[in-house]
Amino acid sequence: MKSRLAFLSSTLPSPALQSSVARSTVRPAPSRLPHRRYHFVPKRTSSQSNSLYPKSTPTILTASASLSSMASSFYPEKARVPTAVQPPTPPIAKFKIGLCQLKVTVDKERNILHARTAVEEAAEKGAKLVVLPEIWNSPYSNDSFPVYAEDIDAGFDASPSTAMLSEVARLLKITIIGGSIPERSGDKLYNTCCVFGPDGKLKAKHRKIHLFDIDIPGKITFKESKTLTAGEAPTTVDTEVGRIGIGICYDIRFQELAMLYAARGAQLICYPGAFNMTTGPLHWELLQRARAVDNQLYVATCSPARDAAAGYVAWGHSTLVGPFGELLATTEHDEAIIIAEIDYSQIELRRTNLPLEKQRRGDLYQLVDVQRLNSE
Amino acid sequence: MKSRLAFLSSTLPSPALQSSVARSTVRPAPSRLPHRRYHFVPKRTSSQSNSLYPKSTPTILTASASLSSMASSFYPEKARVPTAVQPPTPPIAKFKIGLCQLKVTVDKERNILHARTAVEEAAEKGAKLVVLPEIWNSPYSNDSFPVYAEDIDAGFDASPSTAMLSEVARLLKITIIGGSIPERSGDKLYNTCCVFGPDGKLKAKHRKIHLFDIDIPGKITFKESKTLTAGEAPTTVDTEVGRIGIGICYDIRFQELAMLYAARGAQLICYPGAFNMTTGPLHWELLQRARAVDNQLYVATCSPARDAAAGYVAWGHSTLVGPFGELLATTEHDEAIIIAEIDYSQIELRRTNLPLEKQRRGDLYQLVDVQRLNSE
Repeated sequence: MKSRLAFLSSTLPSPALQSSVARSTVRPAPSRLPHRRYHFVPKRTSSQSNSLYPKSTPTILTASASLSSMASSFYPEKARVPTAVQPPTPPIAKFKIGLCQLKVTVDKERNILHARTAVEEAAEKGAKLVVLPEIWNSPYSNDSFPVYAEDIDAGFDASPSTAMLSEVARLLKITIIGGSIPERSGDKLYNTCCVFGPDGKLKAKHRKIHLFDIDIPGKITFKESKTLTAGEAPTTVDTEVGRIGIGICYDIRFQELAMLYAARGAQLICYPGAFNMTTGPLHWELLQRARAVDNQLYVATCSPARDAAAGYVAWGHSTLVGPFGELLATTEHDEAIIIAEIDYSQIELRRTNLPLEKQRRGDLYQLVDVQRLNSE
Repeated sequence: MKSRLAFLSSTLPSPALQSSVARSTVRPAPSRLPHRRYHFVPKRTSSQSNSLYPKSTPTILTASASLSSMASSFYPEKARVPTAVQPPTPPIAKFKIGLCQLKVTVDKERNILHARTAVEEAAEKGAKLVVLPEIWNSPYSNDSFPVYAEDIDAGFDASPSTAMLSEVARLLKITIIGGSIPERSGDKLYNTCCVFGPDGKLKAKHRKIHLFDIDIPGKITFKESKTLTAGEAPTTVDTEVGRIGIGICYDIRFQELAMLYAARGAQLICYPGAFNMTTGPLHWELLQRARAVDNQLYVATCSPARDAAAGYVAWGHSTLVGPFGELLATTEHDEAIIIAEIDYSQIELRRTNLPLEKQRRGDLYQLVDVQRLNSE
């Protein structure tokens, strides 16, 4: 607790500077916003601190990076509130990732078995981290979500899909970003991603924050908000294979989420996602590469395989992008297991080539991570 | 003044809500940062209000857009601080833009004449808005900047490059985004873009905010900060052809600037820029399309033509991108004048298809425009 306070207080100007700034009562400072405080209590499962990172107390950007005197007069460290933290050193910094682009059927039991087989194949090929698609145990439709939903918090007996993920993660000693499944919690439904560690334990649960409500007449209209409730918080999780931020599909359109994850020290953002035949060709690769190059981290996406007969036809094209925006591995729309290498030293290299974090203008713009600001 | 205060106060929660929020003394609220206040006084030339827009008092997003009750519980309007304003209705909402990709020589007089000819040709082809490249009157090098620099504020006698732009804008009755030239101001040098209206008057002056300091060993190393000083503020300008945000080259890498311009109601962002043979093929198109699709506005870039014999070899590929991230017009690396159509109704269409501004999570992240927050 002591170290957290020290971290925050060191981002503040001196008292003398504070009092010299004229303050108007009409300025809507973020901390005066009508926050519903219960939203900002970090959940244990999405905490950045766990036993994998005994020394993961956030390090302050300015403490580890030598800023030139010119740059620092622009307060680059203030461009993120709270100040950005450096990525941690994970137990494994170079490893293979497996992206399982799976066909999804109306048969849930078959979907679970099929996903298990794919995870096993990816692990056999050396993957230490395996990613599944968005909504892999159910057809993607508002009619299906309530029928296929599982009560994840009620334990594995009530959730055969996550029970399988836990078991296979433990048996294969890998980390799994479990795509997403429809989750029932009380009278609400969510689009939820579960992360499991090599011990089979649930490490984090991300509920899609931005619901997919889109209307392009004659092309694609969908309203997830008809049946689903949006998640309450961003999710970063420390795993054997790095600090990972989670987004689900439409979450990728909101650049703020990726910026916020980078500021939390994420090295990789995983977006299970099912873009469609309209937005897929237009934006799927573009958005992934943009998130990666702007935030100088890895981005991995995993889509269902295309089923032209389905009510919602997925674009496919699961992809891994590096921190220079480079396409490292991708596929077309059929079923596929992509195996590709992640090397976190590339993040440091690219951040040295283009030191964006030291060049930001905190005197002109600031991105506030509301949850982090309120919970620390 | 009255209307501005009314605008701001209406973005605030009620006094009751304010007082109910617990405030900690260790929270670095942006308004407590050590601002050098003189930085945030809006310059007349970059003001959003001028005679073209007699009724351009910012309209509040929530006043003009009907938010669903679900979305509003996530405070989408708080995702930008101050609240985002809607784009104005400009005198001309559908028009041709001309991007002049010019060869730049060591002969400044020739460069000025050549640029003039290009602007005239673009106007002859119907362009109501003409954009020039970054550093079009001088070679792009730290050695050249001091030699070719002009004192823009000292008037047209001291600045033949801007004198030409003013005259040709007035004679042709067009708006010119004058690329950029090295500017001398006192003992400082800037990389500066001037905007002229059809009356020949200087409407705005943008000094590159993010200096190009990059080091990719064996590929490209450049340090603008050796000779140049960074600009003090973002620039939006109301013109005959819409509200335009200005960035220069490396400014495009900072997604915050484009987000901030969109929140100020910009319909188009113009980035004169000279990417190079390393970052050009990797990132030039990617960054433009990302800024356009994420912020749902037009993006225009204008590069010098490539000169393989120059000290700094430009990538070329001047481009216009639409608000769906679509490539509307582009070119290769030779000299070219691109004429393409801008239709601002496309912005409204795309924002209806994908209502991102109503779907943002102001309860989770907020982008603060420090200058706007402090100056209004």
